[in-house]
Amino acid sequence: MTVNVAVVMTSRGNYARIGPVLHELSDDPEFDLDIINAGASMIRKYGSLSAILRDDGLEISEEMYNVLEGGNPVSSAKTTGLSMVEFTTVLDNLDPDVVITIADRYETMAVTLAACYQNIPIVHTQGGEITGSIDEKVRHATTKLADYHMVSTERSAEVVNRLGEDEDRIYEVGCPSIDIADDIAENADPEYDPQDDYGGVGEDIDVSEDYIVIQYHPVPTQYQSEYDKTWELIEAVDELDVQAFWFWPNMDAGTDKVSKAIREYRDQREPDDIRFYINMRPTHYLTVVNNSACLLGNSSVGIRECSRLGQPSVNIGDRQTGRERGPNVIDVPCETDAIVEAVETQLDAGSYETSSLYGDGDAATKMVDAMREIEYELKGSMDPTRLGLSEIAPPMD
Amino acid sequence: MTVNVAVVMTSRGNYARIGPVLHELSDDPEFDLDIINAGASMIRKYGSLSAILRDDGLEISEEMYNVLEGGNPVSSAKTTGLSMVEFTTVLDNLDPDVVITIADRYETMAVTLAACYQNIPIVHTQGGEITGSIDEKVRHATTKLADYHMVSTERSAEVVNRLGEDEDRIYEVGCPSIDIADDIAENADPEYDPQDDYGGVGEDIDVSEDYIVIQYHPVPTQYQSEYDKTWELIEAVDELDVQAFWFWPNMDAGTDKVSKAIREYRDQREPDDIRFYINMRPTHYLTVVNNSACLLGNSSVGIRECSRLGQPSVNIGDRQTGRERGPNVIDVPCETDAIVEAVETQLDAGSYETSSLYGDGDAATKMVDAMREIEYELKGSMDPTRLGLSEIAPPMD
Amino acid sequence: MTVNVAVVMTSRGNYARIGPVLHELSDDPEFDLDIINAGASMIRKYGSLSAILRDDGLEISEEMYNVLEGGNPVSSAKTTGLSMVEFTTVLDNLDPDVVITIADRYETMAVTLAACYQNIPIVHTQGGEITGSIDEKVRHATTKLADYHMVSTERSAEVVNRLGEDEDRIYEVGCPSIDIADDIAENADPEYDPQDDYGGVGEDIDVSEDYIVIQYHPVPTQYQSEYDKTWELIEAVDELDVQAFWFWPNMDAGTDKVSKAIREYRDQREPDDIRFYINMRPTHYLTVVNNSACLLGNSSVGIRECSRLGQPSVNIGDRQTGRERGPNVIDVPCETDAIVEAVETQLDAGSYETSSLYGDGDAATKMVDAMREIEYELKGSMDPTRLGLSEIAPPMD
Amino acid sequence: MTVNVAVVMTSRGNYARIGPVLHELSDDPEFDLDIINAGASMIRKYGSLSAILRDDGLEISEEMYNVLEGGNPVSSAKTTGLSMVEFTTVLDNLDPDVVITIADRYETMAVTLAACYQNIPIVHTQGGEITGSIDEKVRHATTKLADYHMVSTERSAEVVNRLGEDEDRIYEVGCPSIDIADDIAENADPEYDPQDDYGGVGEDIDVSEDYIVIQYHPVPTQYQSEYDKTWELIEAVDELDVQAFWFWPNMDAGTDKVSKAIREYRDQREPDDIRFYINMRPTHYLTVVNNSACLLGNSSVGIRECSRLGQPSVNIGDRQTGRERGPNVIDVPCETDAIVEAVETQLDAGSYETSSLYGDGDAATKMVDAMREIEYELKGSMDPTRLGLSEIAPPMD
Repeated sequence: MTVNVAVVMTSRGNYARIGPVLHELSDDPEFDLDIINAGASMIRKYGSLSAILRDDGLEISEEMYNVLEGGNPVSSAKTTGLSMVEFTTVLDNLDPDVVITIADRYETMAVTLAACYQNIPIVHTQGGEITGSIDEKVRHATTKLADYHMVSTERSAEVVNRLGEDEDRIYEVGCPSIDIADDIAENADPEYDPQDDYGGVGEDIDVSEDYIVIQYHPVPTQYQSEYDKTWELIEAVDELDVQAFWFWPNMDAGTDKVSKAIREYRDQREPDDIRFYINMRPTHYLTVVNNSACLLGNSSVGIRECSRLGQPSVNIGDRQTGRERGPNVIDVPCETDAIVEAVETQLDAGSYETSSLYGDGDAATKMVDAMREIEYELKGSMDPTRLGLSEIAPPMD
Repeated sequence: MTVNVAVVMTSRGNYARIGPVLHELSDDPEFDLDIINAGASMIRKYGSLSAILRDDGLEISEEMYNVLEGGNPVSSAKTTGLSMVEFTTVLDNLDPDVVITIADRYETMAVTLAACYQNIPIVHTQGGEITGSIDEKVRHATTKLADYHMVSTERSAEVVNRLGEDEDRIYEVGCPSIDIADDIAENADPEYDPQDDYGGVGEDIDVSEDYIVIQYHPVPTQYQSEYDKTWELIEAVDELDVQAFWFWPNMDAGTDKVSKAIREYRDQREPDDIRFYINMRPTHYLTVVNNSACLLGNSSVGIRECSRLGQPSVNIGDRQTGRERGPNVIDVPCETDAIVEAVETQLDAGSYETSSLYGDGDAATKMVDAMREIEYELKGSMDPTRLGLSEIAPPMD
Repeated sequence: MTVNVAVVMTSRGNYARIGPVLHELSDDPEFDLDIINAGASMIRKYGSLSAILRDDGLEISEEMYNVLEGGNPVSSAKTTGLSMVEFTTVLDNLDPDVVITIADRYETMAVTLAACYQNIPIVHTQGGEITGSIDEKVRHATTKLADYHMVSTERSAEVVNRLGEDEDRIYEVGCPSIDIADDIAENADPEYDPQDDYGGVGEDIDVSEDYIVIQYHPVPTQYQSEYDKTWELIEAVDELDVQAFWFWPNMDAGTDKVSKAIREYRDQREPDDIRFYINMRPTHYLTVVNNSACLLGNSSVGIRECSRLGQPSVNIGDRQTGRERGPNVIDVPCETDAIVEAVETQLDAGSYETSSLYGDGDAATKMVDAMREIEYELKGSMDPTRLGLSEIAPPMD
Repeated sequence: MTVNVAVVMTSRGNYARIGPVLHELSDDPEFDLDIINAGASMIRKYGSLSAILRDDGLEISEEMYNVLEGGNPVSSAKTTGLSMVEFTTVLDNLDPDVVITIADRYETMAVTLAACYQNIPIVHTQGGEITGSIDEKVRHATTKLADYHMVSTERSAEVVNRLGEDEDRIYEVGCPSIDIADDIAENADPEYDPQDDYGGVGEDIDVSEDYIVIQYHPVPTQYQSEYDKTWELIEAVDELDVQAFWFWPNMDAGTDKVSKAIREYRDQREPDDIRFYINMRPTHYLTVVNNSACLLGNSSVGIRECSRLGQPSVNIGDRQTGRERGPNVIDVPCETDAIVEAVETQLDAGSYETSSLYGDGDAATKMVDAMREIEYELKGSMDPTRLGLSEIAPPMD
C-alpha cells in the first residue's frame, strides 16, 4: 500500500532542507508524493522554486500565490492566515496520509495547523533546535502540534523529548542539507562561476580570486532596527577589501528595510566589487559558499552546512543564538568594527575540520526509511510522566 | 500610563472563562480594554455574545463574521485561517500593548499567531492543563507562543514550567470561572426558571422537580464517530426517567453530526421531558447547573465549575481525559449502559464538598493585579537549562 | 484540439440550470470539462451536490468549503470574497480556455471576476433577464464582464445587446432547465413519491391526493422584513386545506430569518399535512412539482420550468418582478389573504398550455454547438455605436 | 442629520481623483467621513498614501494590507477577493449611509460588491467612460451595481443612461482632478523642483531646462507582452535627447515585467538624464507635469488633467482607447520610432488651449452639493423602457 505524502514548499530555503527527501520519496514506489509550491517560493524576487523543482524532475501538484505585500509583521501574519485557508482546501482535496512540515518559518505554522485540524498526521523536521527570532516560538509550537519528529542532532532529540514528546515518535536522522553538503564537498567544481548560469546585478566577480558570500536576513522581532543594522553590515563590507556575492534577504518582516538599505548603498556608493543575486538552486548556492573564503551574515547555512564543509563563517547578531555550532563560526554583534575584524580573522583562517554535528550525509535515507516503517496515527494527550509528573486519570475509551 | 489590552471573544465559553477579568479591566482606569467579538460567538445558533456583552455593560470595539459553514475539520481549519487574516488587521489598527488569548479552542490559535507575528506580547490563560481532543495540542502550542501564563492550578503551573517557560512569567491565579461559581453558590436563586428568560424548544420543565443538564460537544479528533456516540447518549437519556435541559453543541468539527442525531431523536421519539437551549448568559447557565441534580456530558464545566459548586457530574468519553478533577466527577465511556448507571449514582449522591482545585474565587483580581505589574515584553529564546540541559552560546546583542 | 472548460457549481439551483450542458460537455471528446463544487452546494443543509453529481456520472475536480455562517448580508459578501480568492487559485491551476458562469447568484460574481482578472474568456448564461432582488444588479454587471452570452429568451438577447454587447457574442439558446422539464413532462412517473427516496422531516404525505410545493427564498435587499414575510406565508399555508412539500430556503441573506419562522411554526403549531425537504436531485424535484397541484413561493422555477410544464404557480412578492412569464403564473404580494386566494384559484385552474418562452427543450445542444464553434477571445472595449452613440478614437495597436 | 460616508482608498491615483471631495466632505458638518486606506496605497513601492492623507489633515479610520505579491493576473484577482472580505467587515462595523467607489481599478469592484451585498447605497465616480484594458469591463459592471453616478463628461452621462441607469440618479459634475489642475494652473511654482522634497533614485535633473514626465502602466489584458513593450518605450527614451522624471508603474498585473525592464535599463545603460520616483503627493505631481515639456506614457492624466492644463501629451498604446480627449494628445502605438516622433512633435508644440471636457474646476463642490440633497436608497430593478423596450410586469409590494 502506497503512502500518500504531501509537502508544501514556501521558500527557497525549504528546498535546501528537504530536497534530498523529496527526491527519495519521488523515486520510491511505496510513496505517492504531492508537492505544493506556495508562499515566497512563488515570488520571483524571493527566488521562485517552480522552475527549479521541475528542472530537477519533481512534479508540482498545485501552485498558490499567497504572500501579502508589505514585508512587515502585519503582512507576515496575514500571509500565514491566507495560506492556512488555501492549504486546508488543497489538503482536503489531496487527502494525504501524512504531511511533512519543514522547520520553523511562519508558513510552516499554516501547513501544520491546516493538517492538524484535519486530523492528518504531521511529520516535522528540524524540531528541538534553539535559536533567536520568532522562528524559535514557531518551532517549539510546531513540535507540540506535530505527531512525528525528524530531528537533526542528538541534543535536538533530547529537547523534543523534554518538551513532552514520546521518544518512540522522535527520529534522529540528521539534516538533509548535510547530504547536499557532502555531495558538494566531494563533487563540486572548485572553479564554478555562477555568473555563467545566473544574471545577477552589479559588478563582475573574478572567481579565481578570494570572494565572500553575504546572506543577511531581517529578524522579525527586531523589525524596527533592521535598516540601521543593515547599514552597520554595509559599512563593514565597504571597508573590507574583498569581492562578494550578496544574496537578497528572505521575505521575513523587515525585508523591505534591509532591501532599502542595500538599494541606497548601491545607488549612493556604486560598490565595484559586489554582485547581487536573488536565488540560485541549492547545489549551486552551496558550491559558491564552499568555494568562497567566508560566509558572512545570519543564515543558518553558516552554522549547519558550513560546519560540515569546514567553511569559515561569521555569524551576525542573535538570529542564530542558542543553535549548536562547530568550530567554524565566529559570532559577532551587528557592529561594523566587530564584523570587519571577524571576517579578516576568517580570511586568514582557511578551512576548518568537517563536523558531524548536523548529520552524516545520509539524513534523507534515514528519514525515508523511518517514514516507510511508521504506521501513521495522531499522537494522544501528553503523558505527564514524560515531564516528570505523576499521571492523573487514565483514558476512558 | 494606561495599558491597552485587546481580547478576542470567539465562543460563549470564552465569556464564562474570562468574563470577570473583562469587567475588572473595563472598570480599571489603568487599562484600556478593546473587545473584539468574532467566531462562534457571532452566530446565533452557537450562542451570540454581542447582546449579552452589551447588556453587561461591556463595549465591543469590532464585530467579525468568520466562521465557515460545514461543521467539519475542513471548516474549522479554514475558519482559523480566515480569522487570523482579520484578527491581524484589527490588532494592527488597535495597536494594543498586550493581547489576552483564552484557553485552547482553535480560534485561540488565530488570535495567538496574529499577535505573535506582530510582536505583541501575549497573555495566555488556562495553559498547562492536560486533556483529550485537539484542544490538547493547541493548548501546549499556545504555551510555546505566549509570553505570560495565567494558569488555574498548581499542577498546570508546573507543566508550563517543565515545557520550558520561565517561572517568572507564570502566574497561578486560578480560573475566573470559579469566581462566577462562588457568586452563584452564594447568591443564586434556587428556584430560578430559565424558561422565563429564554425560549428554547421542546417540552416544559418543572424546575421544582429534579432535572439534569446535558452538554455534549463533538470531539474533533473522533469526528467520524460522533453521530453514533450521540445516539449512545440519546439512548441513555431516553432510558433515564428524569427531566433535562439540553444545550446544543459548540461548533467544533462534528457539530453537525451531533445536531443531526439530536434532531432525529426529537423528530422520531418526541421526548416529553426535555427542553433544548442554544445559549444562556454564563450566570444563568451556571445557576441552572447549580440547581440541577447532575451535569451530564463532556464539558469542562462538569470538572471545573462543578468541583467548586460540589455539583455531581458525569463525564463522558475522553474529551476531558487527563484534566485534574475533584471527587464530584464520575467518568464513563460513551456507552448507554455506563451513562445510565453513572447518572443514577449521581442522582442518589446529592452534593459533594466544595474544592479549591481551580481557584479560590479571586482569579480575576489576581490576574488583573498581575497584569498591572507586568512590564510587557516578548520572551527570549527558550533557556535550555529549564529543560535540564546545558546552555550553548550566550546571546550576542 | 480539445477545449478546456471550467464550471463552478455553487448551489443546487445551478445544477438544474446547467446540468444538461455539463452532461453534453462531459460526453463530447472535443471538450475537457472541470467541475468545481463549492459554495452552498457543499453544505448539507442547503443541499449538497457532490454525491448527486457523482451518481450522475460527472467527475468533480475540486471541492471547496467557502460559505460563511451568518445567513446575512455580511456573510454573503464575505463568502463572495473568500470564494474569489479560492476560485482564482483553482482556475490558475486548471488553466481553462473558457469558464462558464451561471445566472446571477452572488458567487457567480466570484467566478466571473476570478476569470476576468486572469484574462480567461467567460461564457455567461441567463443574462438579460430582469427581476427584483440583488440578483438583478449582479446579473447585469456579469453581462458587462462576460465575453459570450447564452441567453434564454428573445427579449433577453435584446436586453444584452442594448447593454452594449456585440450581437455576434450573443446566442439565444433557451434555458437548459427547459430540457429537463421536457424530459419530465414526457417520462416522469405521475405517481412518484419522494418519501421513498428522501427522508425529510414532518408528516407523511399521500401523493395520490392533491398537494402543493412550497419554495420561498429570502430577498436579500429586504433582508430585515423576511421573518414577518415568512409568517404571512405560513398563515396562508396554515389556512389552506391542502398537503404540502416545503423546501427549506437557499442561503441568501435572510435565510436564517425564514428558517427561524418555519422552525417556530413547526414547534408551535405542529402542522399535520406538511413535509419539509432540504434538497432533491433536479429531476425528482421537478417531477414532484409537475405532479403537484400548484407551486407556491418565489422561486424562478414557478416562472421558467412551470411555464413549460403548464403547471399552475403562485409567485409571491417582487423577487421575480420584471421576469417574462407565461399564463401559468398568478402574482401576489406577500400577504396572507392574497396568497390564500391565489392558491385556491390555481387549485381550481388545473394545468395550463405549455410555452416556449424559455426554450424548446434543446438548449444544451444549442449551447454546446455554439461553444464548439467559438474561437475564444476576450471582448474589446465597448463600441459606443451599439449604444447609439458616435465613435471616438480608433484602437491603436 | 449627518450623512455617514465611507471611502476606500486603494491607490495613489484615487487621491488625485477624489481628494477635493474628501476635503469638502471632511470640512462639512453635514457629513461624517470615514476613510479606509488599503490596497496599493498601503505599499511603499506603489506610493503609500497614509502619511500624505494625514499631512493634508484627513483622518484615516482604518488601514489594511491586502495586496498579494506577484504583480500578475492571479495576484490581482486574489487581491480583489481578499479586499472584499476585509472591506465587508469594515463596512459592517462603520455602518455608513453611503459608500463612494472610485473609477475602475480592480479593488473598486471589491468595495462595490462589499457595499452592494450589504444593501449600502453606492455612489460611483467616473462611470460611462470608454477605454481599453480590463478597467473597461470593471467600470461598466460597477455602473450596473452602483445606485448613483457622478460622471465627468456629458457623453459619460449619456453612456450611463443608455446602459439602463435612471437619469435622476446620474449627476454630471466633472472630474475632481480638474479642480486640482485649475489650482495648479493658477498657483503652482513654475520653478518647482521635486528633488528638494522627494529623494528618487538616478541622476540630478535641472528643472530650469526642458524635461518630460514618463508614466507607463502595464495593461493587464496584454500582460504577457509588457516586458517587450516597456523596452520599446525605453529605446525611445534612450534615443530622445531630453531629461525625464520617470514614475514607477502602478501595481496592475504586468507591473513586475515593466519594472524588470526598467531595472535592466538602469543597470545596463546607466542613463544620465533620468530620475525615478515612486510617488509624489497629487499637487506636486501635477505641478511637475504642468512644468514639463510633455507627458509621455499611458496614464489617464495625459488625457484628463493635461487637457485642462493645455499640456502636451503622448499617449501610448490602447490603454486609453475610446476615452474622450482634447487637442493636446498625440496617440501612438507602442513602437520606438512612433514614440520618438510624437514626443519631438510635442516638444515643438508648446502648450495647447485649455479644455472644459472633464469639468470646470468645481467638480468637488458640485458632487458634495448633490450628495447633500440625495435621499439615499437602493435603486430598483432596471426599467426596460430606458433601453427602449416595453415594460413587463409591474412591481408587487
